[in-house]
Amino acid sequence: MEPCVHVITLAVDDLQRALTFYRDGLGLPTSGVVAAGYEGSETEAAGAIVPFKLDGGLILSLYPRSELAKDARIPPTSPASGEFSIGHIVRERSEVDALLAQAQAAGATLTDEAHERPWGIYSGYFRDPDGHLWEIIWNPRQASSAVD
Amino acid sequence: MEPCVHVITLAVDDLQRALTFYRDGLGLPTSGVVAAGYEGSETEAAGAIVPFKLDGGLILSLYPRSELAKDARIPPTSPASGEFSIGHIVRERSEVDALLAQAQAAGATLTDEAHERPWGIYSGYFRDPDGHLWEIIWNPRQASSAVD
Repeated sequence: MEPCVHVITLAVDDLQRALTFYRDGLGLPTSGVVAAGYEGSETEAAGAIVPFKLDGGLILSLYPRSELAKDARIPPTSPASGEFSIGHIVRERSEVDALLAQAQAAGATLTDEAHERPWGIYSGYFRDPDGHLWEIIWNPRQASSAVD
Repeated sequence: MEPCVHVITLAVDDLQRALTFYRDGLGLPTSGVVAAGYEGSETEAAGAIVPFKLDGGLILSLYPRSELAKDARIPPTSPASGEFSIGHIVRERSEVDALLAQAQAAGATLTDEAHERPWGIYSGYFRDPDGHLWEIIWNPRQASSAVD
Protein backbone atom coordinates (compact mmCIF):
# COMPACT_ATOMS: atom_id res chain seq x y z
CA MET A 1 0.00 0.00 0.00
CA GLU A 2 1.35 3.41 -0.92
CA PRO A 3 1.77 5.55 2.23
CA CYS A 4 -0.98 7.94 1.23
CA VAL A 5 -4.31 9.17 2.45
CA HIS A 6 -6.29 11.09 -0.14
CA VAL A 7 -9.63 11.72 1.54
CA ILE A 8 -10.94 12.10 5.08
CA THR A 9 -14.71 11.74 5.09
CA LEU A 10 -16.64 12.94 8.14
CA ALA A 11 -20.10 11.55 8.84
CA VAL A 12 -22.49 14.42 9.54
CA ASP A 13 -26.10 14.60 10.60
CA ASP A 14 -26.88 17.80 8.75
CA LEU A 15 -24.84 18.53 5.63
CA GLN A 16 -25.80 22.21 5.53
CA ARG A 17 -24.93 22.76 9.20
CA ALA A 18 -21.55 21.10 8.74
CA LEU A 19 -20.89 23.08 5.56
CA THR A 20 -21.65 26.31 7.40
CA PHE A 21 -19.39 25.34 10.29
CA TYR A 22 -16.37 24.44 8.17
CA ARG A 23 -16.75 27.03 5.41
CA ASP A 24 -18.10 30.05 7.24
CA GLY A 25 -16.99 29.27 10.76
CA LEU A 26 -13.48 27.95 10.15
CA GLY A 27 -12.94 29.45 6.72
CA LEU A 28 -12.03 26.31 4.82
CA PRO A 29 -12.32 26.57 1.03
CA THR A 30 -15.11 24.76 -0.81
CA SER A 31 -17.47 25.31 -3.65
CA GLY A 32 -20.23 23.69 -1.59
CA VAL A 33 -22.35 20.63 -2.18
CA VAL A 34 -21.38 18.50 -5.18
CA ALA A 35 -22.81 15.33 -6.70
CA ALA A 36 -26.29 16.14 -5.42
CA GLY A 37 -27.68 14.63 -8.59
CA TYR A 38 -27.12 11.12 -7.23
CA GLU A 39 -30.20 10.81 -5.07
CA GLY A 40 -29.78 7.29 -3.74
CA SER A 41 -32.55 5.23 -2.20
CA GLU A 42 -33.34 3.41 1.01
CA THR A 43 -30.52 1.02 0.35
CA GLU A 44 -28.26 2.88 -2.09
CA ALA A 45 -26.19 5.81 -0.91
CA ALA A 46 -26.80 9.28 -2.28
CA GLY A 47 -23.84 11.10 -3.75
CA ALA A 48 -24.08 14.60 -2.25
CA ILE A 49 -20.93 15.60 -0.39
CA VAL A 50 -19.12 18.79 0.52
CA PRO A 51 -15.42 18.54 -0.39
CA PHE A 52 -12.74 20.89 0.94
CA LYS A 53 -9.48 20.82 -0.95
CA LEU A 54 -6.66 21.14 1.55
CA ASP A 55 -2.98 21.83 1.07
CA GLY A 56 -1.12 18.89 -0.40
CA GLY A 57 -4.18 17.69 -2.29
CA LEU A 58 -5.89 16.06 0.69
CA ILE A 59 -9.69 16.26 0.53
CA LEU A 60 -11.75 16.75 3.67
CA SER A 61 -15.24 15.60 2.78
CA LEU A 62 -18.56 15.97 4.61
CA TYR A 63 -21.05 13.18 3.94
CA PRO A 64 -24.39 12.43 5.62
CA ARG A 65 -24.02 9.75 8.28
CA SER A 66 -26.86 7.70 6.79
CA GLU A 67 -25.24 7.72 3.36
CA LEU A 68 -21.78 6.77 4.59
CA ALA A 69 -23.32 3.78 6.36
CA LYS A 70 -25.14 2.77 3.18
CA ASP A 71 -22.08 3.34 1.01
CA ALA A 72 -19.93 1.17 3.31
CA ARG A 73 -22.74 -1.38 3.85
CA ILE A 74 -22.64 -1.09 7.62
CA PRO A 75 -25.65 -0.78 9.95
CA PRO A 76 -26.98 2.74 10.59
CA THR A 77 -24.87 4.56 13.16
CA SER A 78 -25.40 7.01 15.99
CA PRO A 79 -23.00 9.88 16.66
CA ALA A 80 -19.98 8.94 18.76
CA SER A 81 -16.95 10.98 19.72
CA GLY A 82 -13.51 9.63 20.35
CA GLU A 83 -13.05 7.29 17.40
CA PHE A 84 -10.43 9.59 15.94
CA SER A 85 -9.11 13.10 16.03
CA ILE A 86 -7.78 15.44 13.40
CA GLY A 87 -4.61 17.31 14.29
CA HIS A 88 -4.04 20.81 12.97
CA ILE A 89 -0.68 22.44 13.63
CA VAL A 90 -0.34 26.20 13.86
CA ARG A 91 2.74 28.41 13.61
CA GLU A 92 2.32 30.46 16.78
CA ARG A 93 1.26 29.52 20.29
CA SER A 94 -1.38 32.22 20.35
CA GLU A 95 -3.02 30.78 17.25
CA VAL A 96 -4.08 27.74 19.27
CA ASP A 97 -6.24 29.85 21.55
CA ALA A 98 -7.49 32.00 18.68
CA LEU A 99 -8.52 29.03 16.59
CA LEU A 100 -10.25 27.28 19.50
CA ALA A 101 -12.18 30.48 20.18
CA GLN A 102 -13.09 30.78 16.51
CA ALA A 103 -14.35 27.20 16.44
CA GLN A 104 -16.35 27.73 19.61
CA ALA A 105 -17.92 30.87 18.19
CA ALA A 106 -18.88 28.85 15.11
CA GLY A 107 -20.68 26.21 17.15
CA ALA A 108 -17.97 23.80 18.28
CA THR A 109 -17.64 22.58 21.86
CA LEU A 110 -14.30 22.93 23.59
CA THR A 111 -13.62 19.69 25.41
CA ASP A 112 -10.15 20.56 26.65
CA GLU A 113 -8.84 24.08 26.84
CA ALA A 114 -5.36 24.60 25.53
CA HIS A 115 -2.52 23.69 27.86
CA GLU A 116 1.01 22.33 27.78
CA ARG A 117 1.20 18.55 27.50
CA PRO A 118 4.00 16.41 28.96
CA TRP A 119 5.39 15.63 25.48
CA GLY A 120 6.13 19.26 24.81
CA ILE A 121 3.22 20.60 22.79
CA TYR A 122 0.65 23.26 23.59
CA SER A 123 -2.77 22.13 22.40
CA GLY A 124 -6.50 22.02 22.99
CA TYR A 125 -9.42 20.06 21.59
CA PHE A 126 -12.81 20.94 20.18
CA ARG A 127 -15.69 18.82 18.94
CA ASP A 128 -17.36 19.94 15.73
CA PRO A 129 -21.19 20.08 15.60
CA ASP A 130 -21.24 16.34 14.83
CA GLY A 131 -18.89 15.39 17.65
CA HIS A 132 -15.71 14.97 15.63
CA LEU A 133 -12.59 15.87 17.58
CA TRP A 134 -9.97 18.33 16.39
CA GLU A 135 -6.75 19.00 18.26
CA ILE A 136 -5.16 22.38 17.59
CA ILE A 137 -1.44 22.07 18.21
CA TRP A 138 1.56 24.29 18.60
CA ASN A 139 4.84 22.44 18.81
CA PRO A 140 7.74 24.71 19.73
CA ARG A 141 10.22 22.17 18.33
CA GLN A 142 8.60 22.18 14.91
CA ALA A 143 7.13 25.62 14.79
CA SER A 144 8.69 26.48 11.47
CA SER A 145 8.91 23.16 9.69
CA ALA A 146 5.79 21.17 10.53
CA VAL A 147 3.35 23.45 8.83
CA ASP A 148 5.16 23.93 5.54
CA MET B 1 -7.67 28.53 9.59
CA GLU B 2 -5.10 27.30 7.12
CA PRO B 3 -6.58 24.60 4.89
CA CYS B 4 -4.37 21.89 6.35
CA VAL B 5 -4.65 18.65 8.22
CA HIS B 6 -1.40 17.44 9.71
CA VAL B 7 -2.39 14.39 11.74
CA ILE B 8 -5.12 11.75 11.66
CA THR B 9 -5.25 9.93 14.98
CA LEU B 10 -7.11 6.64 15.16
CA ALA B 11 -8.38 5.38 18.52
CA VAL B 12 -7.36 1.75 18.98
CA ASP B 13 -8.06 -0.84 21.63
CA ASP B 14 -4.74 -2.62 21.30
CA LEU B 15 -1.78 -0.56 20.13
CA GLN B 16 0.34 -3.60 19.25
CA ARG B 17 -2.44 -5.21 17.22
CA ALA B 18 -3.05 -2.00 15.31
CA LEU B 19 0.68 -1.53 14.72
CA THR B 20 0.92 -5.05 13.33
CA PHE B 21 -2.07 -4.49 11.06
CA TYR B 22 -0.86 -1.23 9.57
CA ARG B 23 2.89 -1.95 9.45
CA ASP B 24 3.04 -5.65 8.65
CA GLY B 25 -0.38 -6.14 7.09
CA LEU B 26 -0.65 -3.02 4.95
CA GLY B 27 3.03 -2.17 4.75
CA LEU B 28 2.89 1.40 6.00
CA PRO B 29 6.20 2.82 7.19
CA THR B 30 6.82 3.42 10.89
CA SER B 31 9.55 3.07 13.43
CA GLY B 32 6.99 1.72 15.91
CA VAL B 33 5.86 2.98 19.28
CA VAL B 34 7.19 6.38 20.31
CA ALA B 35 6.75 8.53 23.43
CA ALA B 36 6.22 5.46 25.59
CA GLY B 37 8.07 7.23 28.36
CA TYR B 38 5.00 9.33 29.15
CA GLU B 39 3.09 6.86 31.27
CA GLY B 40 0.05 8.91 32.18
CA SER B 41 -2.31 8.11 35.03
CA GLU B 42 -5.98 7.46 35.63
CA THR B 43 -6.79 10.98 34.58
CA GLU B 44 -3.78 12.05 32.52
CA ALA B 45 -3.22 10.60 29.07
CA ALA B 46 -0.17 8.48 28.35
CA GLY B 47 2.00 9.52 25.43
CA ALA B 48 2.67 6.27 23.57
CA ILE B 49 1.58 6.42 19.95
CA VAL B 50 2.52 4.76 16.67
CA PRO B 51 3.06 7.38 13.96
CA PHE B 52 3.17 6.59 10.24
CA LYS B 53 4.66 9.31 8.08
CA LEU B 54 2.67 9.47 4.86
CA ASP B 55 3.38 11.22 1.60
CA GLY B 56 2.96 14.96 1.80
CA GLY B 57 3.96 15.01 5.47
CA LEU B 58 0.63 13.81 6.82
CA ILE B 59 0.94 11.68 9.96
CA LEU B 60 -1.39 8.74 10.57
CA SER B 61 -1.20 8.05 14.28
CA LEU B 62 -2.47 5.13 16.36
CA TYR B 63 -3.37 6.01 19.95
CA PRO B 64 -5.11 3.93 22.60
CA ARG B 65 -8.81 4.74 22.82
CA SER B 66 -8.62 5.32 26.57
CA GLU B 67 -5.77 7.80 26.17
CA LEU B 68 -7.39 9.77 23.37
CA ALA B 69 -10.46 10.18 25.57
CA LYS B 70 -8.34 11.37 28.48
CA ASP B 71 -6.26 13.66 26.24
CA ALA B 72 -9.40 15.27 24.81
CA ARG B 73 -11.20 15.26 28.18
CA ILE B 74 -14.20 13.37 26.91
CA PRO B 75 -15.92 10.40 28.60
CA PRO B 76 -14.50 6.94 27.90
CA THR B 77 -15.72 5.64 24.57
CA SER B 78 -16.74 2.30 23.06
CA PRO B 79 -15.78 1.32 19.52
CA ALA B 80 -18.13 2.63 16.84
CA SER B 81 -17.87 2.42 13.07
CA GLY B 82 -19.20 4.94 10.64
CA GLU B 83 -18.02 8.21 12.19
CA PHE B 84 -15.59 8.71 9.33
CA SER B 85 -13.78 6.95 6.56
CA ILE B 86 -10.34 7.27 5.09
CA GLY B 87 -10.13 7.29 1.33
CA HIS B 88 -7.13 5.78 -0.42
CA ILE B 89 -6.86 6.16 -4.19
CA VAL B 90 -5.00 3.62 -6.30
CA ARG B 91 -3.66 3.87 -9.84
CA GLU B 92 -5.18 0.74 -11.34
CA ARG B 93 -8.61 -0.80 -11.02
CA SER B 94 -7.12 -4.16 -10.08
CA GLU B 95 -5.29 -2.61 -7.16
CA VAL B 96 -8.62 -2.01 -5.42
CA ASP B 97 -9.32 -5.72 -5.24
CA ALA B 98 -5.72 -6.56 -4.38
CA LEU B 99 -5.56 -4.09 -1.53
CA LEU B 100 -8.92 -5.16 -0.10
CA ALA B 101 -7.71 -8.77 -0.17
CA GLN B 102 -4.46 -7.75 1.49
CA ALA B 103 -6.33 -5.92 4.24
CA GLN B 104 -8.64 -8.86 4.77
CA ALA B 105 -5.70 -11.24 5.02
CA ALA B 106 -4.20 -8.92 7.62
CA GLY B 107 -7.31 -9.01 9.80
CA ALA B 108 -9.64 -6.38 8.33
CA THR B 109 -13.31 -7.03 7.63
CA LEU B 110 -14.63 -6.26 4.16
CA THR B 111 -17.93 -4.47 4.60
CA ASP B 112 -18.57 -3.76 0.94
CA GLU B 113 -16.85 -5.60 -1.87
CA ALA B 114 -15.54 -3.45 -4.65
CA HIS B 115 -18.04 -2.36 -7.26
CA GLU B 116 -18.79 0.55 -9.57
CA ARG B 117 -20.63 3.41 -7.88
CA PRO B 118 -23.06 5.77 -9.64
CA TRP B 119 -20.60 8.68 -9.45
CA GLY B 120 -18.08 6.86 -11.57
CA ILE B 121 -15.60 5.31 -9.19
CA TYR B 122 -14.77 1.68 -8.52
CA SER B 123 -14.31 1.15 -4.78
CA GLY B 124 -14.81 -1.08 -1.78
CA TYR B 125 -14.62 -0.67 1.98
CA PHE B 126 -12.90 -2.45 4.81
CA ARG B 127 -12.95 -2.00 8.57
CA ASP B 128 -9.62 -2.18 10.35
CA PRO B 129 -9.35 -4.31 13.53
CA ASP B 130 -10.75 -1.36 15.54
CA GLY B 131 -13.68 -0.75 13.22
CA HIS B 132 -12.29 2.23 11.32
CA LEU B 133 -13.49 2.39 7.73
CA TRP B 134 -11.21 2.67 4.73
CA GLU B 135 -12.48 3.09 1.20
CA ILE B 136 -10.10 1.92 -1.53
CA ILE B 137 -10.88 3.87 -4.68
CA TRP B 138 -10.04 3.79 -8.35
CA ASN B 139 -11.30 6.77 -10.29
CA PRO B 140 -10.89 6.33 -14.04
CA ARG B 141 -11.19 10.10 -14.54
CA GLN B 142 -8.28 10.83 -12.24
CA ALA B 143 -6.27 7.68 -12.59
CA SER B 144 -3.05 9.49 -13.37
CA SER B 145 -3.40 12.75 -11.48
CA ALA B 146 -5.11 12.04 -8.18
CA VAL B 147 -2.39 9.91 -6.72
CA ASP B 148 0.58 12.13 -7.47
